[in-house]
Amino acid sequence: MDIQPYLEQQRQKIDRFLATLLSDEQAAPKALYDSMRYSLLGGGKRIRPILTLAAAESVGYAGEAVLPYAASLELIHTYSLIHDDLPAMDNDDYRRGRLTNHKVFGEGLAVLAGDALLTMAFELCSRPVTDHPFDPARRVQVIHELALGAGHRGMVGGQVLDIQAENQDISVETLQTIHRYKTGKLIRAAVRIGGILGGASPSQLESLTAYAEAIGLAFQIADDVLNLTGSREELGKDAGTDAKRGKKTYPAFYGIEGARRRADECVARAIEYLHEFDERAAPLRGLATYIVNRRH
Amino acid sequence: MDIQPYLEQQRQKIDRFLATLLSDEQAAPKALYDSMRYSLLGGGKRIRPILTLAAAESVGYAGEAVLPYAASLELIHTYSLIHDDLPAMDNDDYRRGRLTNHKVFGEGLAVLAGDALLTMAFELCSRPVTDHPFDPARRVQVIHELALGAGHRGMVGGQVLDIQAENQDISVETLQTIHRYKTGKLIRAAVRIGGILGGASPSQLESLTAYAEAIGLAFQIADDVLNLTGSREELGKDAGTDAKRGKKTYPAFYGIEGARRRADECVARAIEYLHEFDERAAPLRGLATYIVNRRH
Repeated sequence: MDIQPYLEQQRQKIDRFLATLLSDEQAAPKALYDSMRYSLLGGGKRIRPILTLAAAESVGYAGEAVLPYAASLELIHTYSLIHDDLPAMDNDDYRRGRLTNHKVFGEGLAVLAGDALLTMAFELCSRPVTDHPFDPARRVQVIHELALGAGHRGMVGGQVLDIQAENQDISVETLQTIHRYKTGKLIRAAVRIGGILGGASPSQLESLTAYAEAIGLAFQIADDVLNLTGSREELGKDAGTDAKRGKKTYPAFYGIEGARRRADECVARAIEYLHEFDERAAPLRGLATYIVNRRH
Repeated sequence: MDIQPYLEQQRQKIDRFLATLLSDEQAAPKALYDSMRYSLLGGGKRIRPILTLAAAESVGYAGEAVLPYAASLELIHTYSLIHDDLPAMDNDDYRRGRLTNHKVFGEGLAVLAGDALLTMAFELCSRPVTDHPFDPARRVQVIHELALGAGHRGMVGGQVLDIQAENQDISVETLQTIHRYKTGKLIRAAVRIGGILGGASPSQLESLTAYAEAIGLAFQIADDVLNLTGSREELGKDAGTDAKRGKKTYPAFYGIEGARRRADECVARAIEYLHEFDERAAPLRGLATYIVNRRH
């Protein structure tokens, strides 16, 4: 399967949906809307929501009703970037080739826009719907997955570990733990939510979870390599920032080639976990490969 | 009804429940847990969760199963205080008689502890439960109320309006709008969530909503008066900070006595909205009066 046209089509579908979320300017202070829109609609690969759609498809559900849940993962990812970029955290001036949110709107509004996007993710998953293919019990389960992946035992916990590790002489095991939480848990939630909504059996959900954990690690290794080897134009932000900040990365432990090899091994393992899935899992398989071969 | 013993009993019940939430220190980085616990378990009147319990009771449900939902309102209230106190927002050094979260743990951790508490509110409302009196459809509805009350069309939106109004010459109508969002929407959610879980009829829910909107306003007027007239010991933070910051308040428009009178009128109206409720609404009636007569 050629993954590029699939990615492009799904990305457009998600972008169209996201644009509808912040279209009613009467409903909130304009400055808040502008700040939320700036970061949410400012590009992005939309990997997490695409994973949700692809996971649902892999177990037999390819309908539009998954979109709000998929979008909720992008809302959470976006909020985390806004807060991570703050001066009190990574203090980044550029993101995706543009000024970071707080550089444009100020720190106060950036904190609040992040808070609003996080909250909106849950608002989206709990909207009153008629004619909905997912029963309420499943929706509660999905909301729980989202909260676990995003919260103190997930992404936020990983962000804390990451801050604590700066300028520390950490082991590769600690590095792996940081990434398992900071990036891995939300990717895991993205895939599992798609699986749950798509009607995965317990054993299918287990396979999807193993797939997600493997690509989560591959994703982070690839990110570390890109941070070192990518150009400013490709990354949309300064390259080499990890090293400057004293952040330990996979290439620091294994070298660039060694890190690439490990990412490839993760991808192979991820695809192996899907061996009992049929051709409807082709997008998930293509996504695994894409994740390590992307240029940004 | 003497409301004081009721408040004390409910507060203890909520405090005990909140303490259980952050007891497993293995589950997240210790620094994050410490920061979350510092603010969540550092005192507080617990008015929002008590309102949830009292609203459920007013329509006939007095069981323990409401506790996690009630607690979720306190988690959201606590996160909002942590973020509001940040240097980029209100820049407060003291809260409830103790240093604010960022003064103790640093700004980065304070932002993340807030994020984690907000996320945990939704985790709590969506926990897998067996033997649960609330059907999943009702739980989804409650999660939606919580997200709407807390998000860009609720509390966060109000916080943005509040920031924008600093040092501006605003009208009393604008002041009212700020408060309706910043404080009112979460109080409204607290009461409605109790009503929904307690099995309120549509007309009961409408009365509860009107009650909540009236006490929300009374609460804020009382807060403004306390900020002006309370002592540092009573407030647990510096008094007179609103005026120093150029924030417009109700006493600035109506004088202290005029503001107090308006708060009393709101309380009378709130109690009137409950005229079709029986003695099980006594705690809600008592809470309305307490809200304007409290000393902190």
